[in-house]
Amino acid sequence: MGLLSDISADSPFSLDNIPFGVFSIKQDPTPRCATAIGEFALDLRALSQSGFFQDASVADALSQATLNTFAGLPAKTRTAARDQIISACKDGQIPDSCLHKLAEVKMHLPVAIPEYTDFFCSLEHCTNCMPITNSKIPENFYHAPSAYNGRASSVIPSPSLVRRPRGVYWKAGTKEPTYGLSQFIDFELEMGYVVSKPVPYGETIKVDDAPDHVFGFVLLNDWSSRDIQIFEMPPLGPFNSKSFGTTISPWIITLDALKAFQCAPKHSTHPLEHLRFKDFEHGTFNIKLAASLERDGKRHQICTSNLRYLYWTPYQQITHHASANCGLRTGDLMGTGTVSGDGKDEKTGKKFELGCLFEATQHASQPIALEGGGKLGYLEDGDSVILSAWCEDSTGRRVLGFGECRGKLVGPDAPIS
Amino acid sequence: MGLLSDISADSPFSLDNIPFGVFSIKQDPTPRCATAIGEFALDLRALSQSGFFQDASVADALSQATLNTFAGLPAKTRTAARDQIISACKDGQIPDSCLHKLAEVKMHLPVAIPEYTDFFCSLEHCTNCMPITNSKIPENFYHAPSAYNGRASSVIPSPSLVRRPRGVYWKAGTKEPTYGLSQFIDFELEMGYVVSKPVPYGETIKVDDAPDHVFGFVLLNDWSSRDIQIFEMPPLGPFNSKSFGTTISPWIITLDALKAFQCAPKHSTHPLEHLRFKDFEHGTFNIKLAASLERDGKRHQICTSNLRYLYWTPYQQITHHASANCGLRTGDLMGTGTVSGDGKDEKTGKKFELGCLFEATQHASQPIALEGGGKLGYLEDGDSVILSAWCEDSTGRRVLGFGECRGKLVGPDAPIS
Repeated sequence: MGLLSDISADSPFSLDNIPFGVFSIKQDPTPRCATAIGEFALDLRALSQSGFFQDASVADALSQATLNTFAGLPAKTRTAARDQIISACKDGQIPDSCLHKLAEVKMHLPVAIPEYTDFFCSLEHCTNCMPITNSKIPENFYHAPSAYNGRASSVIPSPSLVRRPRGVYWKAGTKEPTYGLSQFIDFELEMGYVVSKPVPYGETIKVDDAPDHVFGFVLLNDWSSRDIQIFEMPPLGPFNSKSFGTTISPWIITLDALKAFQCAPKHSTHPLEHLRFKDFEHGTFNIKLAASLERDGKRHQICTSNLRYLYWTPYQQITHHASANCGLRTGDLMGTGTVSGDGKDEKTGKKFELGCLFEATQHASQPIALEGGGKLGYLEDGDSVILSAWCEDSTGRRVLGFGECRGKLVGPDAPIS
Repeated sequence: MGLLSDISADSPFSLDNIPFGVFSIKQDPTPRCATAIGEFALDLRALSQSGFFQDASVADALSQATLNTFAGLPAKTRTAARDQIISACKDGQIPDSCLHKLAEVKMHLPVAIPEYTDFFCSLEHCTNCMPITNSKIPENFYHAPSAYNGRASSVIPSPSLVRRPRGVYWKAGTKEPTYGLSQFIDFELEMGYVVSKPVPYGETIKVDDAPDHVFGFVLLNDWSSRDIQIFEMPPLGPFNSKSFGTTISPWIITLDALKAFQCAPKHSTHPLEHLRFKDFEHGTFNIKLAASLERDGKRHQICTSNLRYLYWTPYQQITHHASANCGLRTGDLMGTGTVSGDGKDEKTGKKFELGCLFEATQHASQPIALEGGGKLGYLEDGDSVILSAWCEDSTGRRVLGFGECRGKLVGPDAPIS
């Protein structure tokens, strides 16, 4: 019996998952495509080169240094490749020589990301944030997904080191501009998804066809500098405040794996024509989310949430994006925006589905008391943020996981590679 | 004597220019690097393959399908290559077989553009626009260059066809959202510049070193949908309203060519430390700009302007951008933002340095009367916008040009390729 004969049922990377990623090993730093099974990374380049895949387009795609070519294959072809991997695992046909312990490989970005877009689509997040800066919910919020173009060059794979940036902001409590180290570094609990089938420049898509354009999901930490953001937002939106680092989890969980967890969105909306997804009951995904802080070796859960809380679903987001004629390319990364909810602790009445510290601490005015002492306002150098996500079966058992999205905030001049 | 023996002194592409671009010809659609001299495109791939360049890195770079590799070479190496081309032209050493009539070649994007950023840095543009929407000049304007990330997938080379987009906007005079054809299509008169030496993620640059990171300049028409923009701006800034097309002129005019036209910016500012460019007298460029409309075969000049009017110079822009730790890649495109001025017609007192129709027609409330009849509010399907730019010597003679940045607005379903 091979190494895969004993996969724990509790593994996030069970045979129901088969995520796609890219890794390298010390002895051979060339990045290669892979899947994760139990505690192992399965080298799909080696498997391809062994003649495992009958379909030459699959073998070729999985021999590349990124997953872009694979993500661009027809959905049916990708599904067949996944099915073949699952069968071979079950039948004990995966050579141990293609397996590497996950703990021993280095993960890379799974795709070369042509462009990165970040949405702002959680009504609860919006409702929580606006009063903190004396703003109202924007009138456009209810009529179309809001978004800004992010900076793809700053998207990095977990586990990542992120330098505290310098920038321009108003000195606390004044209108005196300063250039200096950002004082208010936050995380944002988001998911990301990767474009598969491209949309040519000048073309648009129908919302019912949106699933054809999504390869799969990752976790995404949209690190944010709140002082720089408050300075620079009007009128062009976030820019430098969001481009010092965006950490994503390295394994892409495919729509095939997520099919069993399709569900209706939490909010029932009456969108404009181009955003009406017919199959409302399968319009989004029931994916549980959590964010934790690690400080001084201790881990503290900060919040939980669920992808289905989003007011605008990923399918509506990507359709609205493409409606501009801008074109989408395979590998483009979409961030869902911070996902918050309105869950409250039964005893204390405190909200616990607050997807960033700006919300959770009311812009650091109400720091979180950490178990064992200490307070959390914004992040300190040395703090790690860990996002996680999973899907549960009807009994509440975790049957599929996303792995960790881990990032550590370090000082402005600390080494990061 | 060869084809280059008789270059008109009035040519925008004199021997003082030597711009870089990428073209293909009908008989061979493979894009190849080139320069423009007089009325000819000089095939630099063919020249490289003939053994013309002693420097192997130059020969290799100019044999690629884009200019990215060349742009990434050290500035000294690029300057030497340019000097060698100029000498060879003067000495009649360019084989006619490497020359193609400019009128007969197809121009491509000169570089693969990893990311595109657009700034908002003209004080006059800002001052003119804000009252139209009852807004004030943002408080941050005077302290740092404002910018948003644009959509690189929608950057296209001149001459281009741009489809009128559909999108979400408020029905005129109401707060009723609609999804439909944009009614208010505008152009913006901008320049663009291309990154040469990259900045690694996590690093920043000094403003005095900014010139090392700029390969050269192009013209840039930031096509804008004003109804979609007004709908979507708050709070994240422009998104779909700016991503249905961004036309750039296909020839990159290098810093070497522009050196003679360095000058002090119009505005004398007292910037924060990271934006203080020591050599103020050479902080920007004296580049004259103009925008024209072509409707029903007739050409109408809409406005003129000058790059040096910008409140924040390109060097300050790129430095502020990099200050976020985001990293810059060779080929990244920066848009300067609309360049407006405050020039007034002596007789009528009318301003004529208004770089977009939103300003020039006060959001179509004061349409421009076109010579020969007809009015211009926003653009109509079939309208072409032509941007041009040139530098003059001390006698006012045009000694260097940028070529045309031409784009035609077409209907939403018209063919565009």
